[in-house]
Amino acid sequence: MLPRIEIVLPAWIDAFVDFERSYPSAEDRMRLAIDLSRENILRETGGPFGGAVFEAETGRLVSVGVNLVVPLNNSALHGEIVALMMAQARLQSYSLGGAALPAHELVTSCDPCAMCLGASLWAGVKRVVCGANRDDAGEIMFDEGPVFPESYEYLIERGIEVVHGVLRNEAREVLRMYAHRSGTIYNG
Amino acid sequence: MLPRIEIVLPAWIDAFVDFERSYPSAEDRMRLAIDLSRENILRETGGPFGGAVFEAETGRLVSVGVNLVVPLNNSALHGEIVALMMAQARLQSYSLGGAALPAHELVTSCDPCAMCLGASLWAGVKRVVCGANRDDAGEIMFDEGPVFPESYEYLIERGIEVVHGVLRNEAREVLRMYAHRSGTIYNG
Repeated sequence: MLPRIEIVLPAWIDAFVDFERSYPSAEDRMRLAIDLSRENILRETGGPFGGAVFEAETGRLVSVGVNLVVPLNNSALHGEIVALMMAQARLQSYSLGGAALPAHELVTSCDPCAMCLGASLWAGVKRVVCGANRDDAGEIMFDEGPVFPESYEYLIERGIEVVHGVLRNEAREVLRMYAHRSGTIYNG
Repeated sequence: MLPRIEIVLPAWIDAFVDFERSYPSAEDRMRLAIDLSRENILRETGGPFGGAVFEAETGRLVSVGVNLVVPLNNSALHGEIVALMMAQARLQSYSLGGAALPAHELVTSCDPCAMCLGASLWAGVKRVVCGANRDDAGEIMFDEGPVFPESYEYLIERGIEVVHGVLRNEAREVLRMYAHRSGTIYNG
């Protein structure tokens, strides 16, 4: 009677992502997020955005996410939200910032939209690392919503570090590839 | 290997919510959202927030949501997000604003946080109706995140009507009851 919602990553991710290797640098981590965003286009399993959650110190990969809005008919399933949900499901914790846990970070192939920026705050990550920026998303007509400089300040004041522009050009190239292939651009 | 996420409403909702009756006024609709927020506390199935999606003109109830953050270990599952996801699952559409659909509205027992405000934009609703406000949530230590007057203006400029303070006192009473019972206050 009441709908049930099931969120499952595309099947290709299991073979595509190496959960055993280490991701020491911000660039290593971002390259995974960008590779996910690109592969999600090539496999036609969603929008051009990828994300991942890591243990900040060790670089251990905890979870990944890709945009699944269109295939799962769910406008909340941006790459960041999916990665954060998957991390919490894996750790069986509604916070990635619990006292018993190591610090976690969200790495995303593009600056978060208003929804995902808010979700990062509630998820308990200590750092958000971004690739392409709001203008790069806007260039292919993706709206990031009501995100202002004060929005990032709000996170920073609560102890969340924000890093922009890691491998920006590579991340932007993926967005441009998506537009070139006439992928669905959806803003609500 | 990869986690699967399943989102299911608490079992009591099936008997509690009448999907057949009509909800003509904003107050009728808000009373349902508030009743859900209160019952979610009494049944101990999550936080003190409820929401529902309606067809704006007819008052037909499409979906309901309650805060499920703690029981489902998922910090994105605010009442609004759950209601919006359930509506999209029921209609099998990633937008509630499609040309073939009637206008939809989100009714929430409390002003949306930054994440849920953004989610409302992407969900395709044409109106957001709120009960308690940010200060009422803050009174019991719930943070609404980086929501500014400009955030609401952003929605309004995109054709989304926002109505605040419907049955505010009733909605606030539920928040106070939750604090009085020492419910979990989680902000990430």
